[in-house]
Amino acid sequence: MAKTAITPTRADDYPEWYQQVIKAADLAENSDVRGCMVIKPWGWGIWENIQRVLDGMFKDTGHENAYFPLFIPLSFLQKEADHVEGFAKECAVVTHHRLQPDANGKLQPASPLEEPLIVRPTSETIIGAMYAKWVQSYRDLPILINQWANVVRWEMRTRLFLRTTEFLWQEGHTAHATEAEAREETMKMLDVYADFAENYMAMPVIKGEKTAGERFPGAVATYSIEAMMQDRKALQAGTSHFLGQNFSKAQGIKFQDQNGTEQLAWTTSWGVSTRLIGGLIMTHSDDDGLVLPPKLAPKHIVLLPIYRNDEEKAAVLPYVQSLKKELEAQLFAETKIRVHIDDRDIRGGDKVWYHIKRGVPLRAEIGPKDIAKNGVFLARRDTGEKAGVERSELVATIAARLQAIQDNLFQKALKMREENTRTIDNLDELLAWFTPKNEKDPEIHGGYALCHFTENKEVDALLKQHKLTIRNMPLGLEDVPGKCIFTGQPTSKRAIIAKSY
Amino acid sequence: MAKTAITPTRADDYPEWYQQVIKAADLAENSDVRGCMVIKPWGWGIWENIQRVLDGMFKDTGHENAYFPLFIPLSFLQKEADHVEGFAKECAVVTHHRLQPDANGKLQPASPLEEPLIVRPTSETIIGAMYAKWVQSYRDLPILINQWANVVRWEMRTRLFLRTTEFLWQEGHTAHATEAEAREETMKMLDVYADFAENYMAMPVIKGEKTAGERFPGAVATYSIEAMMQDRKALQAGTSHFLGQNFSKAQGIKFQDQNGTEQLAWTTSWGVSTRLIGGLIMTHSDDDGLVLPPKLAPKHIVLLPIYRNDEEKAAVLPYVQSLKKELEAQLFAETKIRVHIDDRDIRGGDKVWYHIKRGVPLRAEIGPKDIAKNGVFLARRDTGEKAGVERSELVATIAARLQAIQDNLFQKALKMREENTRTIDNLDELLAWFTPKNEKDPEIHGGYALCHFTENKEVDALLKQHKLTIRNMPLGLEDVPGKCIFTGQPTSKRAIIAKSY
Ligand SMILES: [Zn+2]
Ligand SMILES: [Zn+2]
Repeated sequence: MAKTAITPTRADDYPEWYQQVIKAADLAENSDVRGCMVIKPWGWGIWENIQRVLDGMFKDTGHENAYFPLFIPLSFLQKEADHVEGFAKECAVVTHHRLQPDANGKLQPASPLEEPLIVRPTSETIIGAMYAKWVQSYRDLPILINQWANVVRWEMRTRLFLRTTEFLWQEGHTAHATEAEAREETMKMLDVYADFAENYMAMPVIKGEKTAGERFPGAVATYSIEAMMQDRKALQAGTSHFLGQNFSKAQGIKFQDQNGTEQLAWTTSWGVSTRLIGGLIMTHSDDDGLVLPPKLAPKHIVLLPIYRNDEEKAAVLPYVQSLKKELEAQLFAETKIRVHIDDRDIRGGDKVWYHIKRGVPLRAEIGPKDIAKNGVFLARRDTGEKAGVERSELVATIAARLQAIQDNLFQKALKMREENTRTIDNLDELLAWFTPKNEKDPEIHGGYALCHFTENKEVDALLKQHKLTIRNMPLGLEDVPGKCIFTGQPTSKRAIIAKSY
Repeated sequence: MAKTAITPTRADDYPEWYQQVIKAADLAENSDVRGCMVIKPWGWGIWENIQRVLDGMFKDTGHENAYFPLFIPLSFLQKEADHVEGFAKECAVVTHHRLQPDANGKLQPASPLEEPLIVRPTSETIIGAMYAKWVQSYRDLPILINQWANVVRWEMRTRLFLRTTEFLWQEGHTAHATEAEAREETMKMLDVYADFAENYMAMPVIKGEKTAGERFPGAVATYSIEAMMQDRKALQAGTSHFLGQNFSKAQGIKFQDQNGTEQLAWTTSWGVSTRLIGGLIMTHSDDDGLVLPPKLAPKHIVLLPIYRNDEEKAAVLPYVQSLKKELEAQLFAETKIRVHIDDRDIRGGDKVWYHIKRGVPLRAEIGPKDIAKNGVFLARRDTGEKAGVERSELVATIAARLQAIQDNLFQKALKMREENTRTIDNLDELLAWFTPKNEKDPEIHGGYALCHFTENKEVDALLKQHKLTIRNMPLGLEDVPGKCIFTGQPTSKRAIIAKSY
């Protein structure tokens, strides 16, 4: 068996492989604060690209950014009953605003607040309270605002990027004069998320509606995009909520319509988070470490100068620097090519593996022999292909090469999903598929099962028992009459059933 | 007296004028959470530009971004004695991680934390704890990291942008192998801030060292940039701290040097915040509202189509749209010209004043008559100049026109500062200058006094009594022997004395 840079491999221990990929790529690590992570520069570089692209998409669809308070008064959360029930169990509560030494000189919380403040787990209530002030007339609508922020949901079991107590996200909050407009916005932003996931993250997703039990607390309808990871589990990668008039009612977002009649506004909210980075890692990475889709890679190509003495160095370095400038003058996906020169004084082999583990899409080794041929020795991270490439050809084709990697990653992920998606009409078959052959050392198994189903409490219990979840009811499916795989009731509704993160 | 768009004027009531400028420009407003502001889209657009430019400057000086936790364990704060003393009185303290209904169904904080968490007022301690893990050898140094984040310092008296309980900022945190390197970094970032303030905000600043009493809690030396507002008060606009080995000692940031000897690292930190927006407002705005330096304006120019009927509309709108595209293809300060078309169906006069109050640098009215001359009617926000300009000339000169506004704003602010800066060697003269002629309705008075001084407790009390502060000891001043203006002690040290925000 070939030695891999990451131990264990995906097949050996997928969850541990995930942690080791993050460590080897230096993306993030746990902090001393329970459940809170530190995002390191290479991981942050990915998030910066995610932010830049999504922010452009939000602006292109007419949204503006703003910023609302970190804290939410306890009474605000209570205004929407379902909402508070959904978040009460995982709130960080600020109760004091000062520290004071006790008799032993140990600092203790002092100056209790009259009303406790909640560190925002999401901002519907605090933003809604502002919208209520801003909206008087139909002329004040729609409000189309997004915020980039940190949020806190207290988690007992955390995993880097996938589930952390503090995480970073964007939350869009819009208010509209009509139900139709708010529903259109909900679907538009779901489409933006799917577009981003597929065309930037190279991560195929299934758009669909969540079941009632999986709705956002307080929403009328929740839609999600679901991606399949390499262990065949589903990852919810983004959600868009149609909130109806629930939050408008709770917060008093009212307006005079064109006839002078008072109406409640219709609102939506939608968000994606640093969890996307977890999805990106698990979709593309391999047993040698991180693999990055070029459109989101902090660097597109790393140039590795090779020399054995000062004389060679004097020839190689200027060549590499001028190549960097030439490459940076090229565009890929509307941004300048991002080039890094790694001139550290470490062993060549270590340096190559360093960049493999960090997932840099292209790697060019450049020594005296390459320069003699006026070229570079180029390696592709996704396929491992290596070949000498003439300098001017590299410059001319760099964008096409990156696009080829981007496309390959998407196609590979799509193929994986298609190979592991089944239409299943029989409960035994479903359960067998999701049962590992060896419980003690479970192999990667299961996938997406597309099944007829009806929603009810008994089904929930059965799903829980088998650690299965209803991911969503895919949009745009043909209506096919059938029987619920759990209850036998006739239905034409179908959903994706999967294990999930 | 001419009617102004802002009431009161600067001369009438400067603090209230400031609030009204923010309101009229729709930059921000107070939220329902005491001391926390909502930054609205126009205000956020300024912050986005500040972030974009500064982030580029940080990267050009070798820094990378990362992200550290929002929460700091109480015990971490206590490790540096001066540090905790500086922040204990203004901490938001998280004590519980759940809400639970009481007997009356009212939610109460539940599940107390074993150790309270502080919402970060600054991150030296939590970041230092990570650096201690990351640094083993001199090869791991320097660490040059910046973070964009929200921070919380509990404030009793708040003012939009200038002093809020939650604010947004960047905090750079670096660790170095030598004192010289850390000192060099401290000064380098002070220079970056001064460059940004003067060349992007068009706000002249004085770089200098803070007195011991005004140092950042835990720092060995603190440097600041100080700007003069139009009421002649000083605003501290950015600080850069040389932390020596204080935080390294407290957190154990140790490394093996080239000789294998264990050493403590030398650290720095430096930050600017949303307070800059307050400084920007107060430096340039006038009695008609906000005036924006073009380099940071969310929009450089607004195009106002003018038509009285559908026929005129059909001629004007395409003209305006094609002009927008042409302008957007031009560059100013390395970014595309930011053009907004305001085609709202409101009165022309209201629309013009709307954009005056929001400080858009250039305003072009375009109606059938202008189109007949193939031009626009152009107005400059800073000087109020208006003139017809031929279309192709506007496109060709837009960048130069914006630069002229940028330069004019800087020169105006510089002149104001120079006219209101005095070298003073006599205490009576100093106090007279800082005493309003009418205590009940104080006029704008005072400015910057450059005085010889020595630091001691009695001087502090005297300063406090007269509401004066030592801003900083300007860098690069010639050594001039003299006597402390307060104590008469001989000294060659000189400082800027001013009222301040
Ligand atoms: Zn207090
Ligand atoms: Zn708990």
